[in-house]
Amino acid sequence: MKIKTALISLSNKNKLSNILKNLKKYKIKIISSGGTYKKIKSLGYKCIEVSDYTGFSEILDGRVKTLHPKIHSGILYKRNKTSHKKIIKKLNFESIDLVIANFYPFKKIINQTKNHKKIIENIDIGGPALVRSAAKNYKDVTVITKIDHYQKLIHELKLFQGGTSLQFREKMSQVAFGETASYDSIIFNYFNNFSKIEIPEKIFIKTNLIQKLRYGENPHQLGAIYGNEENFNLIKLQGKELSYNNYNDIFACLSLTQTLPKNRGTVIVKHSNPSGVSIETDHLKSYLSAMNCDPISAFGGIVACNYKISLKIAKEIIKNYYEVIVANGFDKAAIKLFKSKKNLRLIDSTRVALNKYNKIVSGINSFLMQTNDNQIFDKNNFKIVSKIKPSKKLMEQLIFSFNVCRSVKSNAIVITQKNKTLGIGSGQPSRIDSCKIAIEKMKRFKQFDNESPLAAASDAFFPFLDGIESLVQAGVTAIIQPYGSIRDKEIIKFANDMGIVLIFSKSRHFSH
Amino acid sequence: MKIKTALISLSNKNKLSNILKNLKKYKIKIISSGGTYKKIKSLGYKCIEVSDYTGFSEILDGRVKTLHPKIHSGILYKRNKTSHKKIIKKLNFESIDLVIANFYPFKKIINQTKNHKKIIENIDIGGPALVRSAAKNYKDVTVITKIDHYQKLIHELKLFQGGTSLQFREKMSQVAFGETASYDSIIFNYFNNFSKIEIPEKIFIKTNLIQKLRYGENPHQLGAIYGNEENFNLIKLQGKELSYNNYNDIFACLSLTQTLPKNRGTVIVKHSNPSGVSIETDHLKSYLSAMNCDPISAFGGIVACNYKISLKIAKEIIKNYYEVIVANGFDKAAIKLFKSKKNLRLIDSTRVALNKYNKIVSGINSFLMQTNDNQIFDKNNFKIVSKIKPSKKLMEQLIFSFNVCRSVKSNAIVITQKNKTLGIGSGQPSRIDSCKIAIEKMKRFKQFDNESPLAAASDAFFPFLDGIESLVQAGVTAIIQPYGSIRDKEIIKFANDMGIVLIFSKSRHFSH
Repeated sequence: MKIKTALISLSNKNKLSNILKNLKKYKIKIISSGGTYKKIKSLGYKCIEVSDYTGFSEILDGRVKTLHPKIHSGILYKRNKTSHKKIIKKLNFESIDLVIANFYPFKKIINQTKNHKKIIENIDIGGPALVRSAAKNYKDVTVITKIDHYQKLIHELKLFQGGTSLQFREKMSQVAFGETASYDSIIFNYFNNFSKIEIPEKIFIKTNLIQKLRYGENPHQLGAIYGNEENFNLIKLQGKELSYNNYNDIFACLSLTQTLPKNRGTVIVKHSNPSGVSIETDHLKSYLSAMNCDPISAFGGIVACNYKISLKIAKEIIKNYYEVIVANGFDKAAIKLFKSKKNLRLIDSTRVALNKYNKIVSGINSFLMQTNDNQIFDKNNFKIVSKIKPSKKLMEQLIFSFNVCRSVKSNAIVITQKNKTLGIGSGQPSRIDSCKIAIEKMKRFKQFDNESPLAAASDAFFPFLDGIESLVQAGVTAIIQPYGSIRDKEIIKFANDMGIVLIFSKSRHFSH
Repeated sequence: MKIKTALISLSNKNKLSNILKNLKKYKIKIISSGGTYKKIKSLGYKCIEVSDYTGFSEILDGRVKTLHPKIHSGILYKRNKTSHKKIIKKLNFESIDLVIANFYPFKKIINQTKNHKKIIENIDIGGPALVRSAAKNYKDVTVITKIDHYQKLIHELKLFQGGTSLQFREKMSQVAFGETASYDSIIFNYFNNFSKIEIPEKIFIKTNLIQKLRYGENPHQLGAIYGNEENFNLIKLQGKELSYNNYNDIFACLSLTQTLPKNRGTVIVKHSNPSGVSIETDHLKSYLSAMNCDPISAFGGIVACNYKISLKIAKEIIKNYYEVIVANGFDKAAIKLFKSKKNLRLIDSTRVALNKYNKIVSGINSFLMQTNDNQIFDKNNFKIVSKIKPSKKLMEQLIFSFNVCRSVKSNAIVITQKNKTLGIGSGQPSRIDSCKIAIEKMKRFKQFDNESPLAAASDAFFPFLDGIESLVQAGVTAIIQPYGSIRDKEIIKFANDMGIVLIFSKSRHFSH
């Protein structure tokens, strides 16, 4: 089936001339209006104006152009149905077999202006109606909504001598409904923001495939990562394809490094839990402290640095086996060195910003949504409740401990000394077990000195004395924890009896 | 501003008469077509047919009805713009100030039939175009797309004497774009399924608010649960509002109970990790075994049973403090008993089926998607690699262990005896640590006898001998683990030297 007539209605008029050349080649008549009409004429091609075609003038500043029965009937009629063909003939309507359209750039406009009136003016009405008509009738009509598909269209026209295959039309129809659904979901989300609704009645997540992954968390599961290219700022400099678990771990790393003091933090993550964290202005020290906290777990893990990796640090990192190195840039010499480990993935995260979007996780036939837990801590969040007050430095260490703790899977206990973790206890159903693990790790890897105070953080309050007792017995002299237990008073008394520092946090930080 | 003319175009014509009564009261002219026109007439109200209004006959079996400039101009013109008003007057068009429309029931149809042609016929073109025009021009036009909002419209008409407030129109406009976006995303997803695309180029998640939650994982985070009411089959029989963490734990429970043999399984979950699991035809034994595996962790946890809870079991459960009890129903006497614990949430999950949908979790400006890991294990997934072969009963125990293991956060080690867990090691960055935790728990809670074999499962292969050694030293005589380590041969040799059973799984089961 040859295409006789094409309707072209474009907001983005890029790459049009090649299409026009091909339509001419197959003697396809072109109908268009407004700016697209002018553009086609200026490129030297013949074109009929929509208003001449319908006999109805374009009115209301272009608000109503193609919303006309002659247009929509020409698209929607079934080519193989006698009654349809008859009425089209009787009304002297024509067949429109190809629609090439894209819409007013609503998304671009909302990024450019806050002017609500102007934004609303950029809601396209005629374009989506055209596209939906054509997409519905894909059995007979080809609809092109993306400039990326122009080449495919040209290829089809060539292959089918001015026609297209049903398979192609079906695929383009699907793409078209994807475009109209996207378009209206962006409008819906805009209205939500405009009306300042935080928990809307309905949510749309519309996201594009960034990359199919080799598999999901495990080889028998399919996996993929979706997002919007424009703000997916992980730049891969070298290495094997990132896996599902790599991405998962990278996100775990970055959520933490971004809340650590800038240009000082190193985080090593394995199985989405930090195995070592350090903040030091001396980057080499920062990396070594994070690694040495638990060198066994670090093996095969992911290193994330919120600083630029120099050759010196690269030389140290390369001694160990890691899957991914994430950093705020790499010195040229470091990149050169890493080239010897071809599989090692290097990720530049300089442009990644703290996640503003709500967190979403799918449950059974449902989704749980929540706002993020990544604000930078304010000192007002904490209250010294022990008789002994911490020094400024110890207070900083306690806040560092607490910050690390919220990114460890609950129940979480983190023991630190100075600017590094010594023991991290994660993912236990009972808090005392997390204490035991943190203590055991600290004792096993012995990264402490005997002068500086040991501090510990707990992501939620201690329900009993046993947890805090075990920490103090292991040498911890300063503890930070959320308040809220019926035993809070008992805990404070215990801290005072033991002569340790105790800080209560207003916020709790479960993470699962 | 009084509404002069309303256009009504409904697929679902329920609850229309009350609207008509009110439109008549405020002398609002009605335009309609097809089935809606007939319905309005049959209810005894005046109505102008669209074709009489536009002078253009309804053609193509109703495919083109309202796609006419007289209709769309009447909706879209700006009431406060002189040039717009002039042209409307000149063309003898009229103002359409209210659009009440809903669409061909595309979603209902795809649930009713597999007939692609019939499904495509149910893509509404005119309706969404009308609704989008009205929604864009909400400054002047009211658009109603949901029957739920009829009462609100009537209320507005009364309040504003035949008009509506701008605030209402804005809200209804937002709802309208939600409807059109939903509609097209369902069509897009249908095409994806029709074309059997598993990793589509674009995904839409469109989901409705089921419930705002008190907060997210923590009190300073907002939280909500979204889903589609029709397949969200958790039925709450009593108790406090479910929290974010409750839901998260319920999903963790059900993912496991649904893969356990029917009518036998009890799972206790805390912080989204199982703390005890058992399968026994004697339900009381099943519950007690799950609970006793780690009674300390069970405290404050969630119990899920894939059987109906009798009074006998309820009496046992009520002795402990739990947040939620999930079961395939409750005997009346059990419900009565639980009434004494008002806050305890009882959830009937009888109608919940294994999750077919892909799993989605948000990362930084992105989403990770993967297919589920909840298939029922097939014996072909496993290979006996040791000289000693397991009895049928032991093989079942090993598969049970492995099944539990995949729902424990990685690295995961699960030790079992007969039909119950003895020790669960979860969430450690290094596998040997998970072994130690599982062993330590087994020794602490002593739920084993000295006759039956101890089996252990690992969610991934042992990278070194140390993990498997520690398990054998602790008395384990049968191990199930994925293959794939460069030390697999060494592991097999070790198993044979020790005289234990070793099973290799083809599938690995990380879960984070």
